[in-house]
Amino acid sequence: MIAGRIRHTVAFTLAHAEGSAGERDFLEAAERLAAVPGVEAFELLAEVSPKNGYRFGISMEFGYNEHPDHLRFVQERWLSEVSDFLELDYAARY
Amino acid sequence: MIAGRIRHTVAFTLAHAEGSAGERDFLEAAERLAAVPGVEAFELLAEVSPKNGYRFGISMEFGYNEHPDHLRFVQERWLSEVSDFLELDYAARY
Repeated sequence: MIAGRIRHTVAFTLAHAEGSAGERDFLEAAERLAAVPGVEAFELLAEVSPKNGYRFGISMEFGYNEHPDHLRFVQERWLSEVSDFLELDYAARY
Repeated sequence: MIAGRIRHTVAFTLAHAEGSAGERDFLEAAERLAAVPGVEAFELLAEVSPKNGYRFGISMEFGYNEHPDHLRFVQERWLSEVSDFLELDYAARY
């Protein structure tokens, strides 16, 4: 990946039931992060390993500063609707 | 990502000391996985989040079957030289 950027990834499970309107609404809100200035390579993914319980993943790349719209999403949606998650942030090694 | 493919990711920490010859040798062996038939988008990364203790990451994409060279690397190097890890496998949601 490009030096100076962070690939911010998070695997997560929602408090909403599978297939529910709440799940759909949360995922749609998450996808709108793709439009936040500075966010690149945004992906909303299914987490499919049988070795852990996470059901979704988000991967996005940006510089070292997070945009207020991203922080707002975390405050207004993430903290109340995500039941379990793990963040991993990657950078180029060289 | 492309439907029908898995993005196999693993965050890990080595049993080898930071900057040691053992660490370097392991990482070089890991990078050779990029040449395994069927492996695409291989990346060896630094894990930089202060919220977890993992130091490295590998991301690669392939179909649903793992190549024997990949399984051999897991048997011969991974199991003895990696002290902690977490696998996350991603797929397209649609």
